[in-house]
Amino acid sequence: MRRTPSFFLAFSLILALGLCVQAPAAETATQPALVQVGVIDALLAGGYEGSLRLGTLRTLGDIGLGTFDALDGEMVVLDGVVHQVLASGKVARPADSLTTPFAQVARMPSPQALRLAPGLDLKAVEAVLDAQLADSNVFAAVRIEGRFASLTARSVPRQSPPYRTLAEVAKEQSVFPFADVDGTLIGLRGPAFAKGFGVPGWHWHFLTRDRTRGGHVLSFTLAPAANADVRLQPLRRLELILPERGLSAFDLSRDRSRELHAVEAGQ
Amino acid sequence: MRRTPSFFLAFSLILALGLCVQAPAAETATQPALVQVGVIDALLAGGYEGSLRLGTLRTLGDIGLGTFDALDGEMVVLDGVVHQVLASGKVARPADSLTTPFAQVARMPSPQALRLAPGLDLKAVEAVLDAQLADSNVFAAVRIEGRFASLTARSVPRQSPPYRTLAEVAKEQSVFPFADVDGTLIGLRGPAFAKGFGVPGWHWHFLTRDRTRGGHVLSFTLAPAANADVRLQPLRRLELILPERGLSAFDLSRDRSRELHAVEAGQ
Repeated sequence: MRRTPSFFLAFSLILALGLCVQAPAAETATQPALVQVGVIDALLAGGYEGSLRLGTLRTLGDIGLGTFDALDGEMVVLDGVVHQVLASGKVARPADSLTTPFAQVARMPSPQALRLAPGLDLKAVEAVLDAQLADSNVFAAVRIEGRFASLTARSVPRQSPPYRTLAEVAKEQSVFPFADVDGTLIGLRGPAFAKGFGVPGWHWHFLTRDRTRGGHVLSFTLAPAANADVRLQPLRRLELILPERGLSAFDLSRDRSRELHAVEAGQ
Repeated sequence: MRRTPSFFLAFSLILALGLCVQAPAAETATQPALVQVGVIDALLAGGYEGSLRLGTLRTLGDIGLGTFDALDGEMVVLDGVVHQVLASGKVARPADSLTTPFAQVARMPSPQALRLAPGLDLKAVEAVLDAQLADSNVFAAVRIEGRFASLTARSVPRQSPPYRTLAEVAKEQSVFPFADVDGTLIGLRGPAFAKGFGVPGWHWHFLTRDRTRGGHVLSFTLAPAANADVRLQPLRRLELILPERGLSAFDLSRDRSRELHAVEAGQ
């Protein structure tokens, strides 16, 4: 049988139609996810024992934040590389065999580019991002590369069992003030219904451009005359990975919202 | 080169070791998940517009429960088949193109077989299952095949926009009392921290052995002299799929626990 050009045209059209039917745009079953290891309320209660290897975590997303086994510093995942901001202020590159009790990672396959007015502070930036998302009931990730007039980060010191609560440990946090610093902010957002297992609202970690300093962000102000490169990814899927053991010790039914806010804000 | 039996033995050992290193038992990143479409608090608030096709849902798990676009009945997924228990009491086999605003499905690759004493009621069965799980902070699925001395199920009638709250609609529920009935209970469990997006505790749907009746379960008592076949699957992963649009209309920050309990219990 000889196949004419019109045969191939018809074949291509049928194939294209078939693909359209296979992938309806309105469905989110295969869209990018926020992947979360552990439950934040267990971390608040002193659940610092790592459950997932960093080698595995790196396969689940290329940007993110979190902490390490024994609460040994603040995690910043950038371009698939895990950075460990220690309480000393130094940044280590931890081995894949190290574990995490709590981390959130994501991919940004279809980010929206945004402009931020110079000089905005943390609250103002969060308001711009939330307005851009339009739907407050979604997860999201943002990456902001730019210059910061000021930025305050912190880290926490490695703990030993029996573990105290995070509110207790945070009293001994190391605070790192930066001025006129270049670097990358990773922001992850949870909807209000993330309360109890995740972090409602935005949560920020930072790494300097030369990757030598950073931490959990307490405050920042964008530089007065610099353009930040902002990429925002709404996330309509969540993948939550619980540890094989260890959660049974914690009462996760009580409301720890205030504790979480105090710890996040460094108060 | 001639390959001796000891070569193959060495090769097999190295292969086996390699597989062990690839799959550390303590990690849950690849373990079975509870897959949830939608947010229960949006359903309580009247979010009945379907977002995910049943044809897609069936690929995500083979047992489960939920409801349909426009709140048109109770869903029971059994052996990968979606059953629609209508308010009339009849059971339909809906088309793959129909959608769901809220459903939970799972797979049971490594279930634990359990014995239940005859005559137990819903609360007693839940206590046995929770004791077997040991860790209260996990998700779980259970399938119970057996004979029930009594069982009360309900369904809800199809709604039209503007949608009322689920508490309002549930007042018009159809109640189906069964006596000495054979069938399958599907139970799905959420931890306390599922409050706000999922269902804390157990949630039961039922289908008769001949697949012609069923619904959301309000109460049951196991038959006095029958052995139920019980398979329990702990689930340490959650996959939550949010609708592409539609959640923005709902305030998901307030506590709807009481409303959920009233609706679940059919009060």
